Amino acid sequence: MKITVLSGGVGGSRFIQGLLRTKGPGDEVTVIANTADDIDLFGLRISPDLDTVMYTLGGGIDRERGWGRTDESWNAKDELATYGIEQAWFGLGDRDLATHLVRTMRLREGRTLSEVTAELCERWQPGVHLLPMTDDSVQTHIGIDRDGARELIHFQEYWIRLRAQVPVQEVVIRGIDDASPAPGVVDAITGADVVVLPPSNPIVSIGPIAAVSGIRAALGATSAPVVGVSPIIGGGAVRGMADQLLTGLGIHISATGVAAHHGARSSGGLLDGWLIDATDEQQTERIESLGITARAVPLWMSDDDTTDQLARDTMDLALTLQDAR
Amino acid sequence: MKITVLSGGVGGSRFIQGLLRTKGPGDEVTVIANTADDIDLFGLRISPDLDTVMYTLGGGIDRERGWGRTDESWNAKDELATYGIEQAWFGLGDRDLATHLVRTMRLREGRTLSEVTAELCERWQPGVHLLPMTDDSVQTHIGIDRDGARELIHFQEYWIRLRAQVPVQEVVIRGIDDASPAPGVVDAITGADVVVLPPSNPIVSIGPIAAVSGIRAALGATSAPVVGVSPIIGGGAVRGMADQLLTGLGIHISATGVAAHHGARSSGGLLDGWLIDATDEQQTERIESLGITARAVPLWMSDDDTTDQLARDTMDLALTLQDAR
Repeated sequence: MKITVLSGGVGGSRFIQGLLRTKGPGDEVTVIANTADDIDLFGLRISPDLDTVMYTLGGGIDRERGWGRTDESWNAKDELATYGIEQAWFGLGDRDLATHLVRTMRLREGRTLSEVTAELCERWQPGVHLLPMTDDSVQTHIGIDRDGARELIHFQEYWIRLRAQVPVQEVVIRGIDDASPAPGVVDAITGADVVVLPPSNPIVSIGPIAAVSGIRAALGATSAPVVGVSPIIGGGAVRGMADQLLTGLGIHISATGVAAHHGARSSGGLLDGWLIDATDEQQTERIESLGITARAVPLWMSDDDTTDQLARDTMDLALTLQDAR
Repeated sequence: MKITVLSGGVGGSRFIQGLLRTKGPGDEVTVIANTADDIDLFGLRISPDLDTVMYTLGGGIDRERGWGRTDESWNAKDELATYGIEQAWFGLGDRDLATHLVRTMRLREGRTLSEVTAELCERWQPGVHLLPMTDDSVQTHIGIDRDGARELIHFQEYWIRLRAQVPVQEVVIRGIDDASPAPGVVDAITGADVVVLPPSNPIVSIGPIAAVSGIRAALGATSAPVVGVSPIIGGGAVRGMADQLLTGLGIHISATGVAAHHGARSSGGLLDGWLIDATDEQQTERIESLGITARAVPLWMSDDDTTDQLARDTMDLALTLQDAR
């Protein structure tokens, strides 16, 4: 079976780990990673979501932090701060830095992000086909009000420096209209048996991937069921900081709110199925009234067992939807 | 008094430390550093001699190693090697990396190497005016024979990767003919009271600086005495690895050999005075026959006291030559 996952960073990676542990021996997993939170800092091209997926699946992630490398040191970052480099708010670890150096060096040599990602994955062997959503430059900017004036800042600055604690006025995904799917991305969607949206941020992770017009079209055209996992349990985001992002854009912070934002595939949206937390079971009917099949299961990926069970539940729902066709 | 020093990395820096400890309160020291061993690696512009001077005088050097930063870690370098990046033979420390990142970032923004050096020195406060010899790209390459064929490799590769253990067939200083002195360099020479050549490598450190035509002209024109310190004591280089470089170019490995290579200023060369080691005193006459005033003093900079005494002896010889005019 061919399983294709549209993924952000931390939540998506953890989900994919479960998928890899529970998949059948012949199953192949392709991950299309968000690149809209890529950023140019210190003269380096940094791809946080690609790296989080690669490090997590390749065994190099710092598990407690959820991002960056194990056994990491922070000497270059400390020095940059001492030099007065303003961007030193970014979590630039010394080991991680090597990945950015290789990526930047290769891009300057004229390679594409897809090619660089393949080279980096030769080392990490993530056990999936890891593809950037696009080889074009796409960068999410967040509109905030600062001293009464609207200001657009890069998503990473909003997320890390401001810790997502400032109201969001708008989200601008720069370059998205001119972005083409990276090689292999469209085929991975149209040729999939199942497409999965893991519990990644609907606005800044899943949103940009689905906003690449070629990807959007493929998601509409594929015969595979598209099944998503709610990133909201009860009234809060699973990973905390997404709330301001959602409310600022008028999305209700609930499994239903995000489902409504994504929309039913039958009416031009993204979803055939939607997994919500068992505690949100009462929302099932409202979600199904949107034309999306809902199933309530435990969503917390608190350990390997719960993560694996969520992966199984996701595949179960997908196969049910497949059979129903 | 205005003292201008033409410097390579380790030997020059140590000598300048002595100069700073022993100079008069109103004396100003300008250092014109070799940039011909600059190299582009990992997409970064690395300036080993500028950094060694800056770190040493700014208190950030690793004293035992003689290059790179104190309290250094090597995680980025290890990772680059794990990625299979061939250039990982270079000693790229994590703290040091930050300097290269700032330099590269600024150069890409369109700043000159002089401007970047000034910015970096705002942090390091080296106590001297530190100037690159040129803002233009100049890179020393070493011709070696490999499998019967002549090959030109960057000096850093020869020095670090091959540990200078391979016979040198030729030295090519790429870009030197088109290089102009950096801002302030010519004035620092023509306006100096004393010009000093510390015990730096005559071929790859002092050589390239003096080979910039505008600098060569300024060294010929200045009314200041030009006094050098021999990098050779007895029959060996003070810092070891220079021997192959000298013999490959037909220079006799002795204080006299290097003096003859530099030549007397009175006949178009570089030197008015030349300090040789006390143990080489018997060479005094031969050096003076070249038109260069020689003085035999202890040259080993084994601790602060001996280094300071060498700085005093150098200034003494310079002032004697000044008085004699």
